[in-house]
Amino acid sequence: MFNVLGNFLTLSSFGESHGEAYGGIITNFPAGLEIDIEKVQQELDRRKPGQSAIVTQRKEGDKVRFLSGIFDGKTTGTPIGFIVENENQRSKDYDHIAQAYRPSHADYTYDQKFGIRDYRGGGKSSARETLNWVVAGALAKQLLPEIEINAYVSSVGEIFCEKPYQALDFSKTESNIVRCPDEETAEKMIEKIKEIKKEGNTIGGTVTCVIKNAPTGLGEPIFNKLHAELGKAMLNINACKGFEYGSGFCGAKMTGKEHNDLFNQDGTTQSNLSGGIQGGISNGMDIYFRAAFKPVATILRPQESINKDGETVTIEGKGRHDPCVVPRAVPIVESLAAFVLADMYLINKTRKI
Amino acid sequence: MFNVLGNFLTLSSFGESHGEAYGGIITNFPAGLEIDIEKVQQELDRRKPGQSAIVTQRKEGDKVRFLSGIFDGKTTGTPIGFIVENENQRSKDYDHIAQAYRPSHADYTYDQKFGIRDYRGGGKSSARETLNWVVAGALAKQLLPEIEINAYVSSVGEIFCEKPYQALDFSKTESNIVRCPDEETAEKMIEKIKEIKKEGNTIGGTVTCVIKNAPTGLGEPIFNKLHAELGKAMLNINACKGFEYGSGFCGAKMTGKEHNDLFNQDGTTQSNLSGGIQGGISNGMDIYFRAAFKPVATILRPQESINKDGETVTIEGKGRHDPCVVPRAVPIVESLAAFVLADMYLINKTRKI
Amino acid sequence: MFNVLGNFLTLSSFGESHGEAYGGIITNFPAGLEIDIEKVQQELDRRKPGQSAIVTQRKEGDKVRFLSGIFDGKTTGTPIGFIVENENQRSKDYDHIAQAYRPSHADYTYDQKFGIRDYRGGGKSSARETLNWVVAGALAKQLLPEIEINAYVSSVGEIFCEKPYQALDFSKTESNIVRCPDEETAEKMIEKIKEIKKEGNTIGGTVTCVIKNAPTGLGEPIFNKLHAELGKAMLNINACKGFEYGSGFCGAKMTGKEHNDLFNQDGTTQSNLSGGIQGGISNGMDIYFRAAFKPVATILRPQESINKDGETVTIEGKGRHDPCVVPRAVPIVESLAAFVLADMYLINKTRKI
Amino acid sequence: MFNVLGNFLTLSSFGESHGEAYGGIITNFPAGLEIDIEKVQQELDRRKPGQSAIVTQRKEGDKVRFLSGIFDGKTTGTPIGFIVENENQRSKDYDHIAQAYRPSHADYTYDQKFGIRDYRGGGKSSARETLNWVVAGALAKQLLPEIEINAYVSSVGEIFCEKPYQALDFSKTESNIVRCPDEETAEKMIEKIKEIKKEGNTIGGTVTCVIKNAPTGLGEPIFNKLHAELGKAMLNINACKGFEYGSGFCGAKMTGKEHNDLFNQDGTTQSNLSGGIQGGISNGMDIYFRAAFKPVATILRPQESINKDGETVTIEGKGRHDPCVVPRAVPIVESLAAFVLADMYLINKTRKI
Repeated sequence: MFNVLGNFLTLSSFGESHGEAYGGIITNFPAGLEIDIEKVQQELDRRKPGQSAIVTQRKEGDKVRFLSGIFDGKTTGTPIGFIVENENQRSKDYDHIAQAYRPSHADYTYDQKFGIRDYRGGGKSSARETLNWVVAGALAKQLLPEIEINAYVSSVGEIFCEKPYQALDFSKTESNIVRCPDEETAEKMIEKIKEIKKEGNTIGGTVTCVIKNAPTGLGEPIFNKLHAELGKAMLNINACKGFEYGSGFCGAKMTGKEHNDLFNQDGTTQSNLSGGIQGGISNGMDIYFRAAFKPVATILRPQESINKDGETVTIEGKGRHDPCVVPRAVPIVESLAAFVLADMYLINKTRKI
Repeated sequence: MFNVLGNFLTLSSFGESHGEAYGGIITNFPAGLEIDIEKVQQELDRRKPGQSAIVTQRKEGDKVRFLSGIFDGKTTGTPIGFIVENENQRSKDYDHIAQAYRPSHADYTYDQKFGIRDYRGGGKSSARETLNWVVAGALAKQLLPEIEINAYVSSVGEIFCEKPYQALDFSKTESNIVRCPDEETAEKMIEKIKEIKKEGNTIGGTVTCVIKNAPTGLGEPIFNKLHAELGKAMLNINACKGFEYGSGFCGAKMTGKEHNDLFNQDGTTQSNLSGGIQGGISNGMDIYFRAAFKPVATILRPQESINKDGETVTIEGKGRHDPCVVPRAVPIVESLAAFVLADMYLINKTRKI
Repeated sequence: MFNVLGNFLTLSSFGESHGEAYGGIITNFPAGLEIDIEKVQQELDRRKPGQSAIVTQRKEGDKVRFLSGIFDGKTTGTPIGFIVENENQRSKDYDHIAQAYRPSHADYTYDQKFGIRDYRGGGKSSARETLNWVVAGALAKQLLPEIEINAYVSSVGEIFCEKPYQALDFSKTESNIVRCPDEETAEKMIEKIKEIKKEGNTIGGTVTCVIKNAPTGLGEPIFNKLHAELGKAMLNINACKGFEYGSGFCGAKMTGKEHNDLFNQDGTTQSNLSGGIQGGISNGMDIYFRAAFKPVATILRPQESINKDGETVTIEGKGRHDPCVVPRAVPIVESLAAFVLADMYLINKTRKI
Repeated sequence: MFNVLGNFLTLSSFGESHGEAYGGIITNFPAGLEIDIEKVQQELDRRKPGQSAIVTQRKEGDKVRFLSGIFDGKTTGTPIGFIVENENQRSKDYDHIAQAYRPSHADYTYDQKFGIRDYRGGGKSSARETLNWVVAGALAKQLLPEIEINAYVSSVGEIFCEKPYQALDFSKTESNIVRCPDEETAEKMIEKIKEIKKEGNTIGGTVTCVIKNAPTGLGEPIFNKLHAELGKAMLNINACKGFEYGSGFCGAKMTGKEHNDLFNQDGTTQSNLSGGIQGGISNGMDIYFRAAFKPVATILRPQESINKDGETVTIEGKGRHDPCVVPRAVPIVESLAAFVLADMYLINKTRKI
């Protein structure tokens, strides 16, 4: 099956940027779990734009409404339907791109594929879709309360958080608007983003995610290795250009002698270049990975482009776009990680007699 | 559905390193395609170890035998079953690891997940599984004859092929044993691998893959973006630690102004940092990506480890392991890329009325 | 994948009888089809109770609202989300069954399976779920405008419509409240249902469905034979106890000589005991099948039953239940048939090179 | 996913009547189950033709060979691959139908769908495919040792086994060649089949299946109701024209007062017209259903038909066909029932927290 998130625990979702609503259906969520809906809303609020000087100024309510599958505060085991109404549907702002293709957006490819597209705010290709994922991920987190999932911005442009994750205090991630738990680096990142914003430009960055206390045994041996599932989920996030876990691309420079994680007697390992996953299956060590995000394509400067008829047009982004999307990706990355883990966790319940 | 490759065109596969046979079933392959079985075997031969001084010396026949789904030389539209018998099943070589966990292998995690494992040659976790993928990919290539897929080794350890792919002549990839089309770099890589082999060590590297002539419109908008499907497939290859496409991790350092691919009037783009994919859908430009492989975990030197009972044991790899697996990954990367494209191609046939 | 309708074209759905809303997501619907939303609503109205003396008196709005996937009146190829709000959520009526198990309902089995259930109006087990299917089926009908699908009530209790379907005028099906196109039989059925209603009792019946103008080639050879897909869909309708197609159970009494459908020279057949399907694939002749529905379990008479603690309780259905559900099943049967055909139709687009 | 049997526990299969081999891959079978391979072979032997005067005289070895997924006698949790070689591939017998379409076979529809078919012995449409299902079902039976599944021939032509299943001794099913546990009826059936055989004709019949000791909770609420899964599986068997469970088509003649199964205090029911399934979920009572099979289409008498060019030809079945396929369907019905139950059983492991 495709066009769903997950293999067994699944999210089917819908919604366009300027349509009536977003929403989704979560299937095969186990029965009997008490759901804290306020916590789901908080995750959604973390994703919301308009929180600061460096992110989009739109004010969106983004209130989730659960329509089924939860009764007397508990999951019933039947499909969980939810909806997030779009409050802000001013479509006029987008008339200028109805016929034109914005560079490095999905306008051209949607038209090629479908012969039709909802051009308002990018339609289906808008990153607003990710709010569905955050709702689903927030439920998944509640299914796995003992697992800690912490993502943070590990680079903006050329500015990197040089400290290893082990040296960071994740409780500080939300204390600054760029969501980097290292305050010194955070300040540099914020400066950089402000500067970029002034230029009407945008900038890319990376998000690192660390998962602690995952049980052993998650992940399927061949085509659903745990890291492949995580990678696929992350690569589906708008603007994501790369994924690595454990030693990642650095591991490709190393030798076996350097790279092997020797065992302690309790089955833990002395090093963890494996990133908590061996043979596609979690080994109980920290799972960590990094996702790369390109700069947002909409820049507040004129760019030459073409329209449907191949004629040259000039396009200029208008007022409400993020100069750096990476801080907002943090809750999305966490949500998808939670959903993938929950999916693999449920599957794993069936793997031994 | 999980534990299959593909969403619509699917490969279900089986086999363990020292079991009786590998094999698979390809479902939903279109009817009426004339199959060149010799070409399938050639792809399988490219994957085979034992071809040179720098790769494993095992001699494996690895002859594919098609059992169904092809009649009078043409596909019938019904499931294509195939089998590759294991000729070399000397299991005694592996008695020393029956109870022990090799560092950075899947031994420990399989036991944690399943409570049982076929320890002979890594059993199900062996990279021999990839021969199933090469068979499936070879058929997929024949389904899409106009698409050119070329992978090559772009780095071994710290030695990188610095030339951009546009400057390379892919017809030279197979002319050297390290499968790098830049001969000068190839020589350095071969030297490095020989040196590493002498030490009983292993080394990692990267594979770059370039896809030309893919039609526009491949890839699904939300959860099956083309690059996410490619990424998932690559990350499922044994030892793969990372995936990036287009600008990749470098793109995360750039600004929107630098990164945007401006259109030509014919819909092609002036630059191609998008890597031929925008909004998850192919735009007709070259698709290119890179996959990182860690060094093989089996080294021919003694390592301390533990056994099932948590006791310390000493493990030493024996005679037949690759010092660098990356050249052998080349046909595997191409095969998976072909299969992903064929899957997306078939799905795309249904997307417009 | 499970808990969805369809294999490629899929409906994921949600909703409980007295929850906030029903709704669904249709995935992989082709782009570019002009949708007549009024026609969808008409199908939904056909399913609605409260239309006459012999069906439930509840007044339900059941207005469908499309939230995504349709733009400027046309499908966009992206997920179609829809919602039908529940206007009538008086849950108090159901307090009497919160702890009790109604005979031959799903109360006991839901509690056994999930340990929790939404007892209001049967919760998830309510037949109100079928309105989601009617919405999806109404879209499927528009995708296949040339195919005619006509279902009708072919028996109520012991009263059968004895005429073969070829002798019926389907334009009369909607002319009477029991939805039997043979007026004489319809009158007898209506009499029977009124009589049963007076007794506070309920009665079963059968629905026959005839599909004309289906193209050849629909259905997959092994595990998704066309009749098996139709059968599965029908058997998922609440109260459905049996399915037969073509000669059905009568065919089991016949000899091969009697049963074989001899060919005409144009590939049509002289008889059609095959029911338009041979080897699981449509042959271009009329497809016809029959589904059996048991009497509704809720009767307006006291019945002894048990509660969660195994104590004896007396249960009596209250005022708003159908004495015979079969007429309302007619649009549901048609909708599911349309959806199955559309699913098979899209898949079939890929089966030849 | 389609063209597989099962939703979570899946069988992907391949093979054609006169191809090299049949085989399949069972995925997601739990690890750690000791497998009695001899018992699997016995089930396969039950399916084999050539056992008596009333069934086909072909001698087929039909030996199953497991190629993976079982190690040291136990399942490993990884895909179970198996193969059954075709020993008897005399294709010459089928030259006469290479261009001709046999009435009520799949010849015409395969050509319409795929534009090509393996005409030898029906190719993919041959009922030999069911041997794959018997292998898979035999493993499923071993996964659920406490569940008893007994199928038997309940009618041949107009001869019915009038006794209710409760009055039958299933240990006698295998004691006669027609597989009816009521000896008196069995004799009449055998006489009938012999008579039909003499005429070169064939005859249909029904199989009843009774499942005892199934746990409560099997089956999914909406689109995968237990009886719908059973029905779909049975309808996929070659020649199956109908399915009913519990009261079935008779239930459609009844009133609610007659049909409701009143509870005993322990949750069992006084009657069992529900057939052990309520709301699509097993309630712990006996599950029973009936499947109808049409007469085999190949008769040993001349029939007029057409060829690919629409020209009239005369066709006559040759020497090795069953006059009545129903006895051979018995192990197939049991196998599919076992597989469906195992699939639902594994899914059910995840449905409560």
